[in-house]
Amino acid sequence: MDTSHLTWKEIEHKEVYRSRIFSVRDTKSRSPGGEVREFTIIDAPDWVIVAPLITTAAGEDAFVMVNQWRHGSGSLSMEFPGGVLEPGETPEEGALRELSEETAMKAGTIVHLGTMGPNPAIMSNHTHFFCAYDLMPLPSQKLDDDEYVDSVIINAGEVARNMGKPPYIHALTAAALALFITQAPRSMAF
Amino acid sequence: MDTSHLTWKEIEHKEVYRSRIFSVRDTKSRSPGGEVREFTIIDAPDWVIVAPLITTAAGEDAFVMVNQWRHGSGSLSMEFPGGVLEPGETPEEGALRELSEETAMKAGTIVHLGTMGPNPAIMSNHTHFFCAYDLMPLPSQKLDDDEYVDSVIINAGEVARNMGKPPYIHALTAAALALFITQAPRSMAF
Repeated sequence: MDTSHLTWKEIEHKEVYRSRIFSVRDTKSRSPGGEVREFTIIDAPDWVIVAPLITTAAGEDAFVMVNQWRHGSGSLSMEFPGGVLEPGETPEEGALRELSEETAMKAGTIVHLGTMGPNPAIMSNHTHFFCAYDLMPLPSQKLDDDEYVDSVIINAGEVARNMGKPPYIHALTAAALALFITQAPRSMAF
Repeated sequence: MDTSHLTWKEIEHKEVYRSRIFSVRDTKSRSPGGEVREFTIIDAPDWVIVAPLITTAAGEDAFVMVNQWRHGSGSLSMEFPGGVLEPGETPEEGALRELSEETAMKAGTIVHLGTMGPNPAIMSNHTHFFCAYDLMPLPSQKLDDDEYVDSVIINAGEVARNMGKPPYIHALTAAALALFITQAPRSMAF
């Protein structure tokens, strides 16, 4: 399929702001029709998210979730474990690390479900989505001194039924659920 | 449930950067344990996304999607229609407007599926998710002079099977698919 009628070309860019966790870049690009327009893009490290499925003692599918304060929303948020990929780490290593740090669970099986832009309109980074099975408990969470995270086990159908309502307010957790439902080798009943 | 062991309190904030489409705010907040930490938050208008379902002549479920260049990813992206909510607009009005502008379709029925933070860790705004049914064609798209958007109709199962792989790279489209599958009054076969 010829997509040249949709394709822009970047002409120039410069960094205009930098914080601890992202930087901002102003760009000029030429449109398919020849106009030059300015855009602002946020550059940040990649993120990882992992949907960890367990079977409860009652034989039900359940997710291991984390409940934590989010400073953007100024509220609690119930999410799949995840975080920022560290330098040198593969996405799979980052997913396993975040899972073990936040939930004190080690995954026997981890599967890549897809990689997307958290917001390709204005962000250049990627989010790598995984699911995990065959979970085994570790001695304890391993949180930074400013991390306050509850790890909780919630029926998978309950997670699905409540997605999009507080405290299930993180769109990247909903994206992970979509990939889990549509891509995972073993999905869940809901 | 007592969540005071997870709840932070903002002490002060100041705007440190402003672009056409978002601003950046540095904040200081006090943790549940009493430490003061700094955070950087992106403020932006709310966004809307709408998953429009139609039945093809062959009797199959299909989505009306849009294919467009995204400057963050520097690539094409196949997405549900959506965009930035305009001042004074309700989320439902914004969803209907974006749908008609980008796809030249008017929705007879629109249903709110949920409202989430696109990234509650670092962004304060919301994304409002809808699905639409009973679509009727309008004379033409209504794009800004720097918008180049193809409107395409794609089998719903194909969309679900390919989510997370190019060109299905927009995580908020995956989030909309999750809410469509789990919350819509009439979902799809896939």
